[in-house]
Parts: sequence; C-alpha cells; structure tokens
Amino acid sequence: MTLADRWLLPDGVKEVLPPEAERIESVRRQLLDLYRGWGYDLVMTPLIEYLESLLTGTGHDLELLTFKVTDQLTGRMMGVRADITPQVARIDAHCLHNTGVVRLCYASPVLHTRPAYLQASRNPLQLGAELYGHDGAASDVEVIQLMLETLRTTGVRQAVTLDLNQVDIYRQLARHAGLDAQQAEVLTEILQRKSLTELRSYVAAQVADKQAAEWLLALASLNGDVTVLQQAEALFAEAPAGVRTALANLRDIVEAVQQYSAEVDIYIDLSELRGYNYHTGIIFTAYVPGYGQPVAKGGRYDDIGRVFGRARPATGFSADLMVLVALSDQVEVELPKGIYAPANPDTLLSERIAALRVSGERVVAGLPGMSDDPRELRCDRQLQWDGERWQVVSLAN
Amino acid sequence: MTLADRWLLPDGVKEVLPPEAERIESVRRQLLDLYRGWGYDLVMTPLIEYLESLLTGTGHDLELLTFKVTDQLTGRMMGVRADITPQVARIDAHCLHNTGVVRLCYASPVLHTRPAYLQASRNPLQLGAELYGHDGAASDVEVIQLMLETLRTTGVRQAVTLDLNQVDIYRQLARHAGLDAQQAEVLTEILQRKSLTELRSYVAAQVADKQAAEWLLALASLNGDVTVLQQAEALFAEAPAGVRTALANLRDIVEAVQQYSAEVDIYIDLSELRGYNYHTGIIFTAYVPGYGQPVAKGGRYDDIGRVFGRARPATGFSADLMVLVALSDQVEVELPKGIYAPANPDTLLSERIAALRVSGERVVAGLPGMSDDPRELRCDRQLQWDGERWQVVSLAN
Repeated sequence: MTLADRWLLPDGVKEVLPPEAERIESVRRQLLDLYRGWGYDLVMTPLIEYLESLLTGTGHDLELLTFKVTDQLTGRMMGVRADITPQVARIDAHCLHNTGVVRLCYASPVLHTRPAYLQASRNPLQLGAELYGHDGAASDVEVIQLMLETLRTTGVRQAVTLDLNQVDIYRQLARHAGLDAQQAEVLTEILQRKSLTELRSYVAAQVADKQAAEWLLALASLNGDVTVLQQAEALFAEAPAGVRTALANLRDIVEAVQQYSAEVDIYIDLSELRGYNYHTGIIFTAYVPGYGQPVAKGGRYDDIGRVFGRARPATGFSADLMVLVALSDQVEVELPKGIYAPANPDTLLSERIAALRVSGERVVAGLPGMSDDPRELRCDRQLQWDGERWQVVSLAN
Repeated sequence: MTLADRWLLPDGVKEVLPPEAERIESVRRQLLDLYRGWGYDLVMTPLIEYLESLLTGTGHDLELLTFKVTDQLTGRMMGVRADITPQVARIDAHCLHNTGVVRLCYASPVLHTRPAYLQASRNPLQLGAELYGHDGAASDVEVIQLMLETLRTTGVRQAVTLDLNQVDIYRQLARHAGLDAQQAEVLTEILQRKSLTELRSYVAAQVADKQAAEWLLALASLNGDVTVLQQAEALFAEAPAGVRTALANLRDIVEAVQQYSAEVDIYIDLSELRGYNYHTGIIFTAYVPGYGQPVAKGGRYDDIGRVFGRARPATGFSADLMVLVALSDQVEVELPKGIYAPANPDTLLSERIAALRVSGERVVAGLPGMSDDPRELRCDRQLQWDGERWQVVSLAN
C-alpha cells in the first residue's frame, strides 16, 4: 500500500476542514435554535442498535443502506443507523409516554453502505424534526413550514420547488381495484418509473374493473402545478370516499402552504410514491435549481410506532446539513481573527490572556522556539509589553 | 421477539432524551467556543474510513474497539471510527500542509465494539483538542491547561487529580537494558499490573546488567505526589541522558501546571504506561472522586503522522462529553418555557407567532382537535385575542 492510498477516503465519504466545519457548526446551531423556538426538543439517538429495533417497519431501502455488525457481547446483529427518523419514533413510542403532541428534533451523522443517490454522501449529517400525536393536515403543514424555514435559515435562497403527493390516493385506488399488497407494490414501482406502456399492460392484466383500472392509469398523468388538484377532483368525483378524503387532505395542505409560503413553487405528482411502504399520507420533497436531488424531504408515517407497541400519528422532515450548507448562498464564514500572545512565562501575560479569552477574544499563544508568523495563525493583533502592562496592538503597526 | 425486546438498546449503548440532550448540546457549544478562543479550529472527520487509514500506527487496543465492515463499492475493509485523534493527525499530516503550529478540535460520536472499561459507553461523544508542530513542554502544558479548563467549563468541580508520566523514561531504560520491542511491551504490561513478583522474575531473567535491572524495578515504586520527581532524579542521576532528559521534561510540565492550576492534585506514576505504543512523551489522565475511570486523558504522540507521510510533533487530549455532563455539578438545565398559540388560522396570529420566534421566544402552536394542556407543552404564557390584537398573557391568570 502506498502512502497516497493510505490517506485516501472511500468514495462518497467526506471530511470537513476549517473553515467549512465552522460554517456547518454555525448553521447547525441556528437550526437547532430555530427548532427549539418552534417547540421541538432535542434528542440524541444511538449510533448503533439491534437490527430489529433499527429496521422494523422501515422497508427494504433502509435495510440496504444499513451497515450490519455483530454485537460481541451477545452475538446478535446490530446496525449502524442509516436514518434517525425511525429511532425518534421509537423514542416517542417507548420512552416519553406522552399521550399529547410531542415535538422532537435531532442533528447527527448517519452512515450509508452506498450513496443513496448519485453524488450523495455516505456519511450525511442528518437533521430533522418530527411531530407525534396529531393526525390532521395542520401538523403536516407545520413540519412543511419548518422545513421551508430550515432552507431559508441555511441560506438556500434559490427558488424552492415543493413536490407534494398524498400516498393514500394511490393506496385507496389500489385497494378498490382489488390489488393485494404485492401487486400494489409492483404497480408502485411501475408508476415511479412513469413507464406508460408497462403501466397499461400491468393494469390491463391485473385489474378487471374498467373504472378502477382507468383511475389507476390516470395517476400517471396527474402531475403539474396546483391545477392538477382540480383535474383530480373532477376525475375522482365518483371514486371511493377514502380517495376523496385523501385528495381533500392534499388540497388543505396545499392551500395552507400557499398562504404562508407564497414564494414556493408547488408541484403536484400523484404518481410520486417514494417510501410508499413507510408513508401513510402526505409526502413532500424540496428541490432547488441546479441540484438534481432532494434537498429536504419528509411526510406522514402514522404506523411506524405500532411495531414498538404504540401506534401514534407522526409527521416530519429531514435533510443532510452538509448538502444544505453546500447549496447555501451565504457568504463564506470568515473565521474569527485573533490576538497573538508571545511565548513568555510572565504571569501578568497569562492573566491578560485568560481575561481576553473570557471576554470572547480568540488568543493564540506563541510557543517557545517557533518563529510563528502571527498572521498565519489568523491573528490581526498581538499582545505587547509597553513597560507597564500587556497591550493589544494591531499587527499592521 | 417480544415488544420489550424490540426496543431494548444493546448493553453500553445510550440514547439521550430531553432535557438531558439540551444540556449536552449547551455544554458542547460552550466547549467548542472555549477551544475557538484558544485558537483551535473545528474539524469534522468521517464516521468511516478504510481500515489502513483508521488504524495505522495506533496499536492493538484501538483495533479491538473498531467495528469492521466491507465497503460494498470496492470490497475493501472499512472501520467505523473508535477514536477521532488518529483521524485528526491524518488531516494535519495530509490536508492542511502547514509547517507551523496547527491547532484542531472536534466533538462527534464514536463507536466501540465493547465498553473500553467497566460501565463505559459504547457510543461516547468524543471531544478533544490537538496541537501539531511543536515538540517542547509548552505545547503539552497548553493542552493540559485546556483539558483542565474543559472540566471547569463543564462544571466538573470535584477535586481533579492529574496523573502524569513521561513514557520516554521507561522507553530509554528498557533500551539501555537491551530489551527488544517485544520484551519491552511484555514488561509494560507487567508494570501496568504492578505485579512486583512477576516484575522481579521477568527482569531477573531478561536483563543481565545489574544497574539497568535495578532502574527498571525502581519504576514500580516511583509513584505518589510531586516529591516522586526528586526521588527519581536522585535515582536516575547516573542513568542514560535520554532518561534524564525525559525526567526534566516531566518536571517542566509539572511545574507549569502547578503554577497555573494550583488547585489540581498532581500524582506522578512512572509505571503508568497506557497507550505505550502510541505515546512518545508525556501522558496525562484526569480523575475525579467517585468515578473510577479517567474523565479526560491525553498525551504526546509525535510519530503518528509518519505513516501518513509527514511526521509531526503532536500532543492533545480527549474526553467523553456524556461522562463530563453526567459528572457535572451544574444545576439541571431547565428547558426554556414558552408561549402557547391557539389553533387559529388568523394571519395576524401567524404573524405574531413568527415575530415572537424571531425575537427568541419559544412558541408552541396548538393543533386543531387537540385538547392540549399548554403546561404539558412547557408553556407558561399564551397568546390571547383581546379584541384588537394578539396579546401574550400569563397562564396563571
């Protein structure tokens, strides 16, 4: 192995150096303060858990992303967290015992076996917020608002497009068409691929009822701006009540988002079924121009708590803080300048240094035998003895 | 698998709920601000790396603590970081290209295959600071000072005991006694166990030179307060120059620490050889009463950069933030109270909520259909319409 190999990081694995790390830390604090201001309490979930706890109820995608290791203490399989949301749902279901509304947030690294999409990091810094205990549109609207506020706070000021769907529309139509769970999942994949030929042939083969088949086929073309809602309402006027309820829920959410975030571009796509096994109502995804992947996403996932013994309504969003900061148009953080203190054992000097640091100054101490250039240590001032005391003087002089 | 099993965390794996998580976050920020004030720049190292990068030059202990997984993209072995210090050394050696003094700090979770000691967590929140590019006592003193300041800032105010040794004293004596690397390592373990019988018999068998053997045996009893330094100086007056240099270095550090941190109890132990393969000079460990394990530790490790192509003098310390916060005598963080806003679509209300949040208030929005008790949502005030505007009124009324 050559030296060059030795320090090469694996593909998709990122480290963050100064000053970028300082910038990420600063945005991280702003966002956690934002969430606190909205009533969301911070939790810190374990980096590792037994596989059953980590993956139960989450679907196959997450399993593929999860590194598995053996617990040397018990021989059981454990997984390194690839997503924090299911862990937070477990905390709500089991640790907090609250029957009312619970709001939680988090910001911690996760690990993926492979990039979740092209160019994605395998060690994202996942942050997000989750709301438990309320099952109406208002809580979905709250987390969508908070997601959009997250983008604003981070400085992602490009025009945001918000993709919306309500997966219950498809779920109810599939049930009405008599599809079983496996057939419904196959059809989900076909719809996701937007492969019309395949869709027509699959529906023709599997769905006997002509009206039910037509409704399913219609989903593929129901995408575009908010006028899609009217088309869908007209088309599904005679559809089962569950379909119309889901559609009304989608309209409620769209209207509320329009009211509070008029600048956001809303895109409806009734065949977008990301995380279909996991989500139970609205799903939403934020995009910005020039970045082909979601910058933040979320949705409702009411059923996940059930496997932990307590089904609670749940909705939330998450994002990779590294991606948000990379897309931010904020001016680069300028690292704080400082005051250089010469290497000198004088106790008056150490007292002065300590006092300056307490007052919030950055003071870099010189070390004996080094011919430091204080500017290379990012100092614009230095401490100098004027015969009576240690004075802070500009380095320009 | 029962429900109870499903949400059980593995032994030694911890999660942090509110309000404890808020407290840890608050201390984390204070400490990173402290390090910034001393001139230490933040870095974020990867959660995973190729095993060769992660473990090269670090010794067997760290390898045992490291979870190994296969990189699905290359088939190569990767490890989940069990210690951040070697990663930071790699960053100094390879990414920063600075020939002067470099100061770096970090605060991130690591993962251990098994508890590093009894009762230890397997997912510590490791934080620390490292100084590269200076090889005198002054930089060791700086990081020891910063470690002690870390304990003060965290609120660990119990009497701190600082254990000190300079591993070069032993290394030079072992070399003088003609021990090879393997013999020296065996003897290290015997000394660590403080097994006098075993020590005498091993030294008698391996070391021919009577004086050299005596010096090695003496190490086992050279422990206690700072007067041990004088005993050692007398005993090693005729020892090889390297031994005397290392001892003088230890005295320099002890005296500087005494000058700046008079309240700290110093304990010298010349047979304490923790991390012997890794450390090259001073090693230091902080203890507090009632906690049988180190609360923070560090030392000099000049050689680690060599395997990455650039040997640089290096010294630093690290600690588990979770342990520090648990030992802190600071009063429990009281989570911020807030203002409850009724569920009401009035835009005047949403404007008022937004303004209050911007001003730093915590505002929890009511959700339709919930009979929230605002107090359960940690609110001590609420927004009320007085006929003209939304007023913040006390909940006591």
